[in-house]
Amino acid sequence: MTVAMQTNLHPAWLPADAFRAIGSRRTVISATTSDSPLIDTVYAEVRAACYRFGGTVTRSSVDDDTDLMLRLTSEPGGLGDEGYSVGRADGITTVTADGPAGLLYGLFHLVRLGGSAFTGDPVTDDRATRTHRPAVRRRMLNHWDNVDVNPLMGQIERGYAGGSIFWRAGALTDDLDRLRTYARLLAATGINAITVNNVNVGRTEARLLTDRLDDVATIAAIFRAYGIALHLSVSFASPMVLGGPPTADPLDESVRAWWAATTARVYDAVPDFGGYVVKADSEGQPGPFAYGRSHADGANMLADALAPYGGVVHWRAFVYNHRQDWRDRSTDRARAAYDHFAPLDGQFHDNAILQVKYGPMDFQAREPVSPVIGAMPATRLAVELQVTQEYTGHQLHVCYLGPLWSEVLGFRFDGDGDGPFTGDAGSTVAGIAEHGGSLVAVSNVGDDPFWCGHPLAQANLYAFGRLAWEPAADPVVLLDEWISLTFPADTVDDPALVRGVLHAMMDGSWRTYERYTAPLGVGFMVRPADHYGPSVDGYEYTQWGTYHFADRDGVGVDRTRAAGTGFAGQYPKPWADVYESIADCPDELLLFFHHVPYGHVLRSGSTVIQHIYDTHFAGADEAATMREHWQRLADAGLDPALYARVADRLDEQVRSAREWRDQINTYFFRKSGVPDAHGRRIH
Amino acid sequence: MTVAMQTNLHPAWLPADAFRAIGSRRTVISATTSDSPLIDTVYAEVRAACYRFGGTVTRSSVDDDTDLMLRLTSEPGGLGDEGYSVGRADGITTVTADGPAGLLYGLFHLVRLGGSAFTGDPVTDDRATRTHRPAVRRRMLNHWDNVDVNPLMGQIERGYAGGSIFWRAGALTDDLDRLRTYARLLAATGINAITVNNVNVGRTEARLLTDRLDDVATIAAIFRAYGIALHLSVSFASPMVLGGPPTADPLDESVRAWWAATTARVYDAVPDFGGYVVKADSEGQPGPFAYGRSHADGANMLADALAPYGGVVHWRAFVYNHRQDWRDRSTDRARAAYDHFAPLDGQFHDNAILQVKYGPMDFQAREPVSPVIGAMPATRLAVELQVTQEYTGHQLHVCYLGPLWSEVLGFRFDGDGDGPFTGDAGSTVAGIAEHGGSLVAVSNVGDDPFWCGHPLAQANLYAFGRLAWEPAADPVVLLDEWISLTFPADTVDDPALVRGVLHAMMDGSWRTYERYTAPLGVGFMVRPADHYGPSVDGYEYTQWGTYHFADRDGVGVDRTRAAGTGFAGQYPKPWADVYESIADCPDELLLFFHHVPYGHVLRSGSTVIQHIYDTHFAGADEAATMREHWQRLADAGLDPALYARVADRLDEQVRSAREWRDQINTYFFRKSGVPDAHGRRIH
Repeated sequence: MTVAMQTNLHPAWLPADAFRAIGSRRTVISATTSDSPLIDTVYAEVRAACYRFGGTVTRSSVDDDTDLMLRLTSEPGGLGDEGYSVGRADGITTVTADGPAGLLYGLFHLVRLGGSAFTGDPVTDDRATRTHRPAVRRRMLNHWDNVDVNPLMGQIERGYAGGSIFWRAGALTDDLDRLRTYARLLAATGINAITVNNVNVGRTEARLLTDRLDDVATIAAIFRAYGIALHLSVSFASPMVLGGPPTADPLDESVRAWWAATTARVYDAVPDFGGYVVKADSEGQPGPFAYGRSHADGANMLADALAPYGGVVHWRAFVYNHRQDWRDRSTDRARAAYDHFAPLDGQFHDNAILQVKYGPMDFQAREPVSPVIGAMPATRLAVELQVTQEYTGHQLHVCYLGPLWSEVLGFRFDGDGDGPFTGDAGSTVAGIAEHGGSLVAVSNVGDDPFWCGHPLAQANLYAFGRLAWEPAADPVVLLDEWISLTFPADTVDDPALVRGVLHAMMDGSWRTYERYTAPLGVGFMVRPADHYGPSVDGYEYTQWGTYHFADRDGVGVDRTRAAGTGFAGQYPKPWADVYESIADCPDELLLFFHHVPYGHVLRSGSTVIQHIYDTHFAGADEAATMREHWQRLADAGLDPALYARVADRLDEQVRSAREWRDQINTYFFRKSGVPDAHGRRIH
Repeated sequence: MTVAMQTNLHPAWLPADAFRAIGSRRTVISATTSDSPLIDTVYAEVRAACYRFGGTVTRSSVDDDTDLMLRLTSEPGGLGDEGYSVGRADGITTVTADGPAGLLYGLFHLVRLGGSAFTGDPVTDDRATRTHRPAVRRRMLNHWDNVDVNPLMGQIERGYAGGSIFWRAGALTDDLDRLRTYARLLAATGINAITVNNVNVGRTEARLLTDRLDDVATIAAIFRAYGIALHLSVSFASPMVLGGPPTADPLDESVRAWWAATTARVYDAVPDFGGYVVKADSEGQPGPFAYGRSHADGANMLADALAPYGGVVHWRAFVYNHRQDWRDRSTDRARAAYDHFAPLDGQFHDNAILQVKYGPMDFQAREPVSPVIGAMPATRLAVELQVTQEYTGHQLHVCYLGPLWSEVLGFRFDGDGDGPFTGDAGSTVAGIAEHGGSLVAVSNVGDDPFWCGHPLAQANLYAFGRLAWEPAADPVVLLDEWISLTFPADTVDDPALVRGVLHAMMDGSWRTYERYTAPLGVGFMVRPADHYGPSVDGYEYTQWGTYHFADRDGVGVDRTRAAGTGFAGQYPKPWADVYESIADCPDELLLFFHHVPYGHVLRSGSTVIQHIYDTHFAGADEAATMREHWQRLADAGLDPALYARVADRLDEQVRSAREWRDQINTYFFRKSGVPDAHGRRIH
């Protein structure tokens, strides 16, 4: 095999230069099994680097001139399939792994270390402990790609980077090199599982499971070489739409037999197939409710079909009434997943993984952590994050999501430590995902030359993979890693300037985005349907359960047990009490849990209305400052196309942030009548 | 020729039974010229009726047994091309016309009279004066049909009755019978001109002017047989997109030559071609502004190309800034058409007709009459109405627009007589359209079996044609005419019940629609893009210039000279003063002209806020009552498909009216904090 290097594509975090340290040295790959495609991949990677940078690589034993030893143990040494250790002695850096995947991950670890992997003795870089094992078994990306272009949603649902890299005009892409390049990028972050079709499964997409298995096998072979297992999103109604029994009842024997036979054929074609992902009884997708069956019945039926082959089903918990009456204040969409699923705890088979969005609503820039995650100790859970910036600026805005995910992963259900995760899993979200075995995110990649539309949005994809491997990692350190890889010191005029500018722009960009959009955790206020740009009342009188209830006196959703929907009671203590209390509720979630007057004084000391004004003026100013930072790089030697792309998008971000500022401020000034304490212009 | 009768189509106002009175009698057609296709049409119509009902028709002279004489004068008798007189003596009813078109219109007049045309002596039906001449020279329907389906707007822009009857998948329809049937229906209302493509002219549509003239000629031949002239919507940039000069500058000689040559070819193909309709410099369409030329320059250039053949250009005045900043309160879209066009009065050539929407905004259920109509005495004006229910319920709601149009047509610029038009044209809108020579409306027809989606929406199409012929007609009388024709007494069980129910539903349906939608003339508050259903703030923070400025204290747009945008000053007195004055401004337009507190007392004695509550509760109740009325016809012997279609749409109307009621009331309650005086439920 060869290493794909496509010249019309931005190399993201694997530019040729990232391999300089390895490629200029002498490497020996020592593996007792040579039949693994992953070992071939490791060899091909090093060989390609050596070809470019003058080093050597052999698949034999160490000799005197070796700088780097990549070694597969002959007996398992407790590192697991994917773990590895890094050591350095006698001038030789050694990566040891029990399995081929571990060797691949160890290689990419060295890429991150760069030249420092080959200095000192032992390796002391503080980003590298000696032994590395992934925290989470399955680190999965879901692609919401449609094979056919959907008339409403386009080719990628919630995609902001062009068309699909997998599918084109109903067929498998003919650019398989791009898929290899992509697999390589993902593996370098630690991702080891993907789905390649939308969880909303259309007629064409359903057929991937049966008569289009050849396409699936083709993709699987490409990703297999980088240790990434292919999963498929399937329709719960598959038997009915694919020529099976005229029912999808999960307790019907003919249905079970159809799934068993169909799954057997999938494994014939793809022996290391990962399993199924299912969105059922959600936003119009079919599911077990039609047959009076539970979600456990549905998930277990698929789990049973997969079990003989070691496959798993990821069953999404995103189930709610999407035809709610806005007049009905007793129904609370935030409650729905818990109400549906918590009673089923313990009923799911061991290879049925319940995939839960991190918040109770839908990927808002600020939500509390979903109480479902803490409520099902006897169920394997996957936590679902969103890399694609559906509600966070469509990859037109710089919004580095690492800090958001880090906060989510570090949230402790059993205590008050809701700061960044520091490593002790306990009852953190990360710990629960580790136990469940999956951390999942929706991809932000399309056929755009910069992969993600916004070049800086690559950092989100990178950070997701790295956090899935190591949830306790500091997201700012991960960003730094990404900067080092993406903008190698040798390729820019002033590396410190580039690094400084990018940190100034990105470190706090999520909070900046939060500041100029919906305030204090109230969420939404986006334009319906496309979810970009402000529309304060856009969702207020709709069926979607996403309301803010602003009137002339106040704003927010009362989700208390005492007087509201009771959602706060879905949390264990202390959170049930913290969120219940207006005094104790964190400011950033106040309007998620409480309806308060505009004059209510926050824990910060500001009133709600003044907080709205202040944060919106500040957020828009910060967006403008971000643009100024970028302009400092105009002559820094960056790829001109990349510079221009980011500059264009920053213009849009600045415009959009001002629009958010003005619409939100005007809306609340018109409602409240309270003038800005600082007399700034509100329209 | 034969008379088209398609069995899969609802016959609208020309069911076979409408011809019973004629078809069961003995008719003589006496015409000295037999070469007119219109005479052939008259003969074919009568012959088809006789075949069905047992009468006879000859094209010779009267004999003793004649009941009906259709007579073309040998010398013009002052009736004009389209006029006719009806008389009755010695048991013979005689229709006399100077021209073939007059004879056709006379025939359809008899159809409306039914049996009463043949009783008494003379004809005394009070709907029939002895002599009939159309008030307006051109009674035109504009079809906003796209030849190719537009990805955003579908096949018919703002169409609510399915696909186009003219075009299918980029080609001319192969159902030419349907076009014949349609031409016949239109002629029966008095319509004598149509366009068959959207005023937003796409690439494919532009080619109708040149290499697709054969399609145009095919359609023209069909409509010619019913006295209807074909016009085309053309792109101002036609030379550039159709292989002509690389400019569209109207003063460029090569452009003028291209249009002259192109127009000559059009007339070669269609000798009675009507002319062009142009939307220029409007919502993204190209126009003369790009070359620093005026709209008069643009219109005159096309007028000059058409003049040798007697053609006209209808040049639309719908020009405004569609990229307005909502923060900018100094720009007022309502002012735009006047500001653009009034200064050009007197500069348009005689065959350039300025086509002005009836209101200054965009076809709202309530707007003041456009001041442009009264401001250009030295220009030929066409008044544009909208039959398709873009802002009036998408043909899902019963909304009989005859009374709206009658009010508009009767509006006097020189006086206070803004009630229904009573016949003295003076400076009424109708009088100005008569002088200008055109009354135009956007069609509501598609390939739906009921033509209009909602069977009762046929009444709007019918009423438009009849009002264009006779603007002083009482719209309720026209509705009665439509009922008599569409539901002939012989075909239903209880004609009086049917008539009573339809009047109860339809007579006041426009005012009902107004009651449950945007209050007091403020307009919009519809869902953006599709313009259906409520969204109070949907347009409030957009680029479209359509704002209501509601805050916690009040609502409305200050368009006064004294403190607002000055739009009121575009009217002559007394209207400039009436609209300027909060005290004198008609209630139904108050919020169009003034921003007032919620407690402001209307001329009706109610406060603004209580008026909003009262009208919205009343409007939704009236919609529910409408449905109850219809249910009384469940067993009245109506076509079951028609009954069911109307019943289904009434369900939607009732639902939608409640949604409007609740959203508007809740929105204003939340803003104002004022409770309903009657304690009704507001959410």
